[in-house]
Amino acid sequence: MRNIKGIIQYDGTGFKGWQIQKDAPTIQGTITRCLQILTKEPISVLASGRTDAGVHAIEQVISFLTTSDIQLNKLIKAMNALLPSQIRVLNISEAELNFNPRYDAKMKTYLYVIFNGHFVSPFINNFVWDFPIKLDIEEMIEASKYLIGTHDFSSFTCPDFDKDDFVREVYSIKVIKDNTISFMGFSLQGDFITIEITANGFLRHMVRNIVGTLVDVGRKRMTISRFNEILLSKDRRLAGCNAPARGLFLKKVYY
Amino acid sequence: MRNIKGIIQYDGTGFKGWQIQKDAPTIQGTITRCLQILTKEPISVLASGRTDAGVHAIEQVISFLTTSDIQLNKLIKAMNALLPSQIRVLNISEAELNFNPRYDAKMKTYLYVIFNGHFVSPFINNFVWDFPIKLDIEEMIEASKYLIGTHDFSSFTCPDFDKDDFVREVYSIKVIKDNTISFMGFSLQGDFITIEITANGFLRHMVRNIVGTLVDVGRKRMTISRFNEILLSKDRRLAGCNAPARGLFLKKVYY
Repeated sequence: MRNIKGIIQYDGTGFKGWQIQKDAPTIQGTITRCLQILTKEPISVLASGRTDAGVHAIEQVISFLTTSDIQLNKLIKAMNALLPSQIRVLNISEAELNFNPRYDAKMKTYLYVIFNGHFVSPFINNFVWDFPIKLDIEEMIEASKYLIGTHDFSSFTCPDFDKDDFVREVYSIKVIKDNTISFMGFSLQGDFITIEITANGFLRHMVRNIVGTLVDVGRKRMTISRFNEILLSKDRRLAGCNAPARGLFLKKVYY
Repeated sequence: MRNIKGIIQYDGTGFKGWQIQKDAPTIQGTITRCLQILTKEPISVLASGRTDAGVHAIEQVISFLTTSDIQLNKLIKAMNALLPSQIRVLNISEAELNFNPRYDAKMKTYLYVIFNGHFVSPFINNFVWDFPIKLDIEEMIEASKYLIGTHDFSSFTCPDFDKDDFVREVYSIKVIKDNTISFMGFSLQGDFITIEITANGFLRHMVRNIVGTLVDVGRKRMTISRFNEILLSKDRRLAGCNAPARGLFLKKVYY
């Protein structure tokens, strides 16, 4: 038995998220089908975490067990030939048999892209939140500093989420006015505000709820101290909107 | 009666081309439906020319007649609110009643984007032809020079196209190795080769057939003199493949 680790990139636009579903296209479902064709055996694909419908990944980490003896360089070529162009395998390698991309993850970085100009081109619309009202980035930076450290992030997750541990540690949060967003091999330029958060783990909708609330601060609908009150309140009903999925990228998983 | 001229931008990925069809999403169908809702009257939308399924437009020119007295600034806002984000109206203005975006067009520019690197990201895949074999750009530039001027372009159109006039005048053709492609408000960076052709008119598939054949020259499957022979032969069967629609943009229409 081999445990194969892969790093994949995907445009989540046309998918109903990571997790396999019976009648909807998902990333996990698409990769599972591809690997079952290539290995001719049932395959169960794990990931570092689920991404929601419309969310993208610059580097998602996956793994799967197989008895196939296919060479890695052949497997990656075959996968990229068989997978739709919205999903690309960047790298594959042999992992320890007990490697688990979810439980072994030490920290993760998410990137959120806001287009804060007047006209958002159809050519980037799937990858940004187009927010035409001018945002005060200095206020957003100040508010974001309250998130750093270990907190109960109940205010920034789904109210009905069936978890009982809402404490996460945020290592860094960078709110940047940026004219260039670089991916592998290409970059976008425009009037962007990017929010990059690194933490030991993320609750469901946590990044999108944080971004939605920081945008309320940036547009002067909420004060910086109110932002901190909401974090401390642990009450989801007080936070801002859930920012659209299309601006969110899983950027990196650290082991 | 008013004749309203519009400049629109679209991501053609999810559409079956410009021309209205009964059971498929098209640009013309989508805009027509939008305008009928806004004006509450039957509307016929003209364009400078059809674009095929998957082809994009940076600036397509359209026009439509209406008896509505809606103000232009209200109309453009309402259109952009009602249209899907893949189609944006950049500008609208009043035109002469006899303005026809197709017949009045003096010349047009098309842009074709080839990604000539090893890894094409899913995030730009809908907008480029990913061609991983290294292309000799100098050879492509030399071959392209034969296209300039007035020629019968039968070799570079569909063999079954029901037209009898295949003569067009190409004013300029630029084959450029480029690291940046700029659109309105944003740009892409990467290992691109762009081919920009300006002519008094284009036959169906003309740009894509020219690009497919220039790529044969660039990869040393075809000599420069053979490229010229094919142009002079007026025989479509001799030219290279039809380059994929997704790399093609209608860039500008001149009146």
